[in-house]
Amino acid sequence: MQNKIIEFSESTSFIACGSAVGKCEHEGPVGDCFDIHDKTDRFGMKTWEKAESEMQRLALNSAMSKVGFSEHDIDALFAGDLLNQCVGSSYGLLDFDIPYFGLYGACSTAAEGIMLASMMVSAGYFGKCAAVTSSHNSSAERQYRTPIEYGGQRTPTAQWTVTGSGAFIIGRGNGVRITEALPGIVVEKGINDANNMGAAMAPAAIDTLFRYFRNSGKSADDFDLILTGDLGWEGGSIFCELMAVEGYDIKKKYNDCGMIIYDRESQDMHSGGSGCGCSAVVLASYIIPKLMRGELSDVLFIGTGAMMSPSSIQQGEAIPAIGHLIRLQKPKSE
Amino acid sequence: MQNKIIEFSESTSFIACGSAVGKCEHEGPVGDCFDIHDKTDRFGMKTWEKAESEMQRLALNSAMSKVGFSEHDIDALFAGDLLNQCVGSSYGLLDFDIPYFGLYGACSTAAEGIMLASMMVSAGYFGKCAAVTSSHNSSAERQYRTPIEYGGQRTPTAQWTVTGSGAFIIGRGNGVRITEALPGIVVEKGINDANNMGAAMAPAAIDTLFRYFRNSGKSADDFDLILTGDLGWEGGSIFCELMAVEGYDIKKKYNDCGMIIYDRESQDMHSGGSGCGCSAVVLASYIIPKLMRGELSDVLFIGTGAMMSPSSIQQGEAIPAIGHLIRLQKPKSE
Repeated sequence: MQNKIIEFSESTSFIACGSAVGKCEHEGPVGDCFDIHDKTDRFGMKTWEKAESEMQRLALNSAMSKVGFSEHDIDALFAGDLLNQCVGSSYGLLDFDIPYFGLYGACSTAAEGIMLASMMVSAGYFGKCAAVTSSHNSSAERQYRTPIEYGGQRTPTAQWTVTGSGAFIIGRGNGVRITEALPGIVVEKGINDANNMGAAMAPAAIDTLFRYFRNSGKSADDFDLILTGDLGWEGGSIFCELMAVEGYDIKKKYNDCGMIIYDRESQDMHSGGSGCGCSAVVLASYIIPKLMRGELSDVLFIGTGAMMSPSSIQQGEAIPAIGHLIRLQKPKSE
Repeated sequence: MQNKIIEFSESTSFIACGSAVGKCEHEGPVGDCFDIHDKTDRFGMKTWEKAESEMQRLALNSAMSKVGFSEHDIDALFAGDLLNQCVGSSYGLLDFDIPYFGLYGACSTAAEGIMLASMMVSAGYFGKCAAVTSSHNSSAERQYRTPIEYGGQRTPTAQWTVTGSGAFIIGRGNGVRITEALPGIVVEKGINDANNMGAAMAPAAIDTLFRYFRNSGKSADDFDLILTGDLGWEGGSIFCELMAVEGYDIKKKYNDCGMIIYDRESQDMHSGGSGCGCSAVVLASYIIPKLMRGELSDVLFIGTGAMMSPSSIQQGEAIPAIGHLIRLQKPKSE
């Protein structure tokens, strides 16, 4: 059953989504889609870590307010982030008295959370669940790399951690459907350059998409869009090339949330966006609304995550990565 | 449905469990129960972090070998640990080509993983799942506190992070059953002393147990044992006292994995054991075997976790905590 594609009940769908982003994300090509933005990136808080937590609170509140939900209407939270011990989530969602499942899937957390929430709803354990995640450029930079005050020069393959949080409320309804899922396997192909996460994560996305195609008998032709979480321009091109080697031509259907969120020319984020918030906000406020409006009808999304830590990199370890796949389809027509 | 107790299909049960521990744990009162131990705490590795990963690999291998399983027999892994970005798990389980769900539940990870794995098996998404977690005293000390070489004096309420890893294979069978679950809600009651985690976590355990008793109509009299994960002597006494205030006399049925694992007199671990590995190894190798042999028949286990980080403590934040409850029952008699 390891490679079995999980299928959900017909009505498992997004009830509402919410997003909160920082300045660069608001200035990007899809910046007008997001629900909330703060041009200071601070969200009224004194530390970047608290700002990140506040974004999670705002994103979930935003989703809840769209459908008039209070905390009593949500039965479980699935949440995680990139900060040590996932404090972005545990502090950010503390205001909500809702049963809490803490996740760590690095940048794949949005996909992991949506997958688990959908499984719970489809199986009937909970009526409605929320999946929430976030990343903040300034809290990530000082934790993973060097303090931003150093002004260190970034390499061309480096990606820019998105300041943003996305929240997804999943239940039974008539919205955009989550119809299938295939959880990722942790793979490690020897990449140990923390400034080239796209290359580290591409093999994990390939492993999952390849298993999906093989087991479903489908190919890129069956979908409008094959979307990865945050491979960026570097990882994205590796992904398409290696899928072609496997006999799957996906290039014309392919896009990546890390390429969508910033303008390559004017914003120059090097290889594109990354971080848990990257795929979360693009999905919540750009892709899912497109599916809702029927501009897209069938999307394969592969949330990608690099499961290393600063310590593991310093100790010379290579970067393990994962890709969780979910299939999103437009609402069923009446 | 927030307070609804989740019920599992009759046959959802532990197929096999495995454990690996360090020197102090092997010298403790239940030290002979554990499957594997290493008196150097190094498990053949050069760093404490790699030793922790190796323990996870050994614990899962030990469980698999008891029932002759290969990696192809397990459909999904649910794993997490205390290290930044949960690298104990992502590196430790890299050898196993099994779909992977990363968790962060701090010391409640064993309970969270067993709960999610049981939900997946009971709903039929997967045939067999494994829940794995670990902690290592030396990797935890240098990450959370001060390097052990400093020889800093510990306060009386401090607990000792257990060096150990526990693995649980869950499927449909005739073993010790997981019959009910109630996920925890993150609560924070103003405790900000990282050397008194028992006091920080006790309110979360109370919140969950109180909700369980209220909704099930049951009391301590209905169980052989009410077991918490790692409240230790300090947190455990707070827990019993505050439950008594709520009208539930649990004292004579109560125990804690952090009190079981070390000898209070001869080992002097101050307030007892803690860490993800604490409840994992005590459950895997002491409590579940007792249920298997019929020496216990009905146990409520509340895995407790403190969801803070060194950064959040340094920034003056109080400690949020969680308690996930699972009910374990002896095998059904023929």
